[in-house]
Parts: sequence; structure tokens; C-alpha cells
Amino acid sequence: MQRRLKWSRLYYNDDVATTLDDDDDSDATNDDDYHYEEKVDGRGRGELIRLCLAAANIEFKDHFLYERAEYLKLIEDGKLLFNQLPLLEIDGKNLTQSNSCARYVARKASLCGKNEDEAVQIDMLYEGGRDFLTPFLPMVFKSEADVLAGAKEKTLPKYMPLFEKVAAANGTGYLVGSSLTLADISVLEPLLLCVEYFGTECFNGYPALKKVYDTVTGLDSISSFLKGPHRQRKNDERYVGEVKRVLNW
Amino acid sequence: MQRRLKWSRLYYNDDVATTLDDDDDSDATNDDDYHYEEKVDGRGRGELIRLCLAAANIEFKDHFLYERAEYLKLIEDGKLLFNQLPLLEIDGKNLTQSNSCARYVARKASLCGKNEDEAVQIDMLYEGGRDFLTPFLPMVFKSEADVLAGAKEKTLPKYMPLFEKVAAANGTGYLVGSSLTLADISVLEPLLLCVEYFGTECFNGYPALKKVYDTVTGLDSISSFLKGPHRQRKNDERYVGEVKRVLNW
Repeated sequence: MQRRLKWSRLYYNDDVATTLDDDDDSDATNDDDYHYEEKVDGRGRGELIRLCLAAANIEFKDHFLYERAEYLKLIEDGKLLFNQLPLLEIDGKNLTQSNSCARYVARKASLCGKNEDEAVQIDMLYEGGRDFLTPFLPMVFKSEADVLAGAKEKTLPKYMPLFEKVAAANGTGYLVGSSLTLADISVLEPLLLCVEYFGTECFNGYPALKKVYDTVTGLDSISSFLKGPHRQRKNDERYVGEVKRVLNW
Repeated sequence: MQRRLKWSRLYYNDDVATTLDDDDDSDATNDDDYHYEEKVDGRGRGELIRLCLAAANIEFKDHFLYERAEYLKLIEDGKLLFNQLPLLEIDGKNLTQSNSCARYVARKASLCGKNEDEAVQIDMLYEGGRDFLTPFLPMVFKSEADVLAGAKEKTLPKYMPLFEKVAAANGTGYLVGSSLTLADISVLEPLLLCVEYFGTECFNGYPALKKVYDTVTGLDSISSFLKGPHRQRKNDERYVGEVKRVLNW
């Protein structure tokens, strides 16, 4: 059994991926390591970057590390600024820190607002979306029932009304302005979890936020992503087992 | 004894502060509540914003909340997007989320890089600086000895070499380019703690990072801030006692 690391290494496009795969395959035990069906990754910190790439209509390839040696080689090659994954290889750059990767992709795709008023509003909502997500991150690492109970008791009652207020005040089906921004993407990630675990009833009493959810998930780019192979499955025992084994948690 | 909240409410300039003080004084028990010498705040999430305002040469006033009613009034007035402090009132905006406040001020002062290459590098280093700071945040809330032991054993050995590498590669006395950026400010905050708790010996073996520290703390704007009344004292038992009492921790 090979060792597996939990983070994705994201490629900008297939050309780059092919080039790097050629190098990396020399360390891998077989060529099938990079096929989608063999990936063991969950969502983790990479899911936001995948959502941003999808929203930006940037093609990419997920690349999961199967060998610790491959991870160490990335460090040795100076690709990991803080020795951490995920890594986004894009435009000849090695980007790490998921928030920085998300903002970089969002800037490329003009998802950061039309002016400074929008920019700072989007940035605050982005941060709020991250806070909304945080309580869900330990899912299955801690008991799923406990995480869901905490989310239901504290997280949703705090954030759903706050984002509803913003959505209602804007009224366009987006949180800021009249088109998709990084704010919507950040908030979409926890909303997807809410729907996944609690059903669309989670939107009861929050019609404007439901409209944002419907609008954003109805975009071709996002809709295709959610149905496609890049969307990672939710945390489960297998995923948690892999992570614990590989990272010695 | 009045109830006191731990976060600062930052004002853009004294004009604004005066106007708002006039309103707020109606709720306060006496006019002295807003004097510097009575503040009970520690550094918390507001210290980064103070550093950014100082670096940007933007005058501001710290405003600490002494009454829970005043905090609730801020919520009622719709000033706190996520019902959280700190709040930065600037340019007629009510900004929350400390990272968003820091980036806003940094954009105003052109501290985010000259081009996209610099911008994303600064953003990654900014995030790394936040990660470097995180283990210090529970200081005194957890035993100071335990926090310092953890920092010495894990945090410094991880981050000092990484930032040294960046500082050495750039070589200008700044982490990116040849002038102050948000990256330097983010990393300065934990470096100040390292020096405060471990002395300048913490830079042994890290001469390029020491040069960054000396360069940045030698700037008039930063030097004046560190010697002035805006710089908050380090966490102590009194501060922790106040926070626990007010926030029911």
C-alpha cells in the first residue's frame, strides 16, 4: 500500500500537467496513480481553489500525491513556500496558501469587484464565508454527529441570517453587484455543505440567500464543476483513515 | 465596575472620532472612557490594523468599548457585518474582518506590490505571517510558559528559516521588492513577539530576516508607532481577566 497525502496539487492546464506528469511518473510506482478514479483526496483546503478555477473557466488537473518522496521533492525543488500543500501551478508560478491561490484566480477572472467599494465588500464577505466554513472542516475527524449538531446549533443560526441580510439588500441573486464574485464562491462552499447535510430546508426563512445559491449553482461553470470529476466527495471514514495514516494525526 | 469589550474600534482620523465620540458619550458614564490611559485592550486582531494604519501614515484613534450596550448599538446600527469586532471606520465605510481591514489600508497606501508577480508573492507571505502569529495568540489565555515552549519548539524552527530564505533571496531589507509591503507588516507582528519574548537572539542564524526586522522597525512610521500610545501592551493577567469576564470565556 502506498502512502498518500491528502492535498491536491492543482495544475493550470493539461499541457503543464502532462509535462510535469512525465517528470513525476519516474517516482511513481505505476502510471495509473494520476487517474481520477484512484484519487483518495477529500475536499480540504483545495476545494475552494477548485471552485475558483471552475468559476474562472480555467481548465486544470487535480494531482494527488501518492508518495511522500514526491512531496519532499516539491519542497526540495522550492515549490512550497511554507512547505505546505495545496500547491497551484499556474502561469509559471508555484502558488501556495489557499486564500492567496483563490484571490489570484479571482483577480485573473475579474471576480474581485468593479471598484474599491465592491472590492472591500467582497473581501469582507469572503472572510465571513471562510469563518462560516471553519466549523465544518473537522467533519468525520470529529464525530459527524457532533460537528453537525454544533453547526445546526451555532453556525447556521449565526451566518444564515447575516448572509440573508446581505443577499436581500443586494437583491440580484449575487452577494455583491450583479455578477459572480469571490464573495459568492466563498459562501457557496459552506452552503453546499449545508444542503448536503441538512437539505434545502436549511434555506427556510432565507429566500434571498436561497436565490444566491440557486443563481450561483445554476451557472454553467459551477453546475458543470459540481457534476464533474473535480468535485471531491464529502469526508468519510476512508478519507479520514488515509489522512490519519499518512500525516500521523 | 463597567463591562469592557476587548476589541478596539479604530477611527480613521480625529474628525470622525470627535463626531462619533459626541454621539457615543451619551451612552458612556463619563467622558474619560475614551482616554488612552483608560483602555484595557490588548493587541488581539486589531494590532495588525494598527500596524497597517501606522505604516500608511493614516492618523487614527483607538476606541475601546466599555459598555456592552455600545457594542449592541453598533450591531443595531448595522456597522458590524458579522456582529464582530474589530471595526475600522474609514472613508465613510464600516470595515470588519481584520484581514480585509489590513488589505484595504494596504491598498490605499500602495503596499500590495507594483505588479501581479509582487501582489501574489506579498499575499502568500501575508498569509504565512498570519500562520506564524497564530500560535502566539493564546498567550496567557493558556499558560505563557506552554505557549512560549511551543513557539520555541515548533513555530520559530518552522518559520524563521522560511522567511530567512525569502529575505535573503530578495536581499533589500524587505521581503518583496525594495520598499515596505503588507508582507513585511504581517511578518513583523510575530517577529516583534519573538524579540519581546526571546530577545534578538531569535535572529541568530537569520541575518537577512534580522535585516528586514531592522529596516522595517527603523522606518519613521513604524518606529513612531512602536514607541507611541497606539502600540498595545502584551497580554497579561489583567487583560486576560478582563476578556474572560466580559466575553464569558
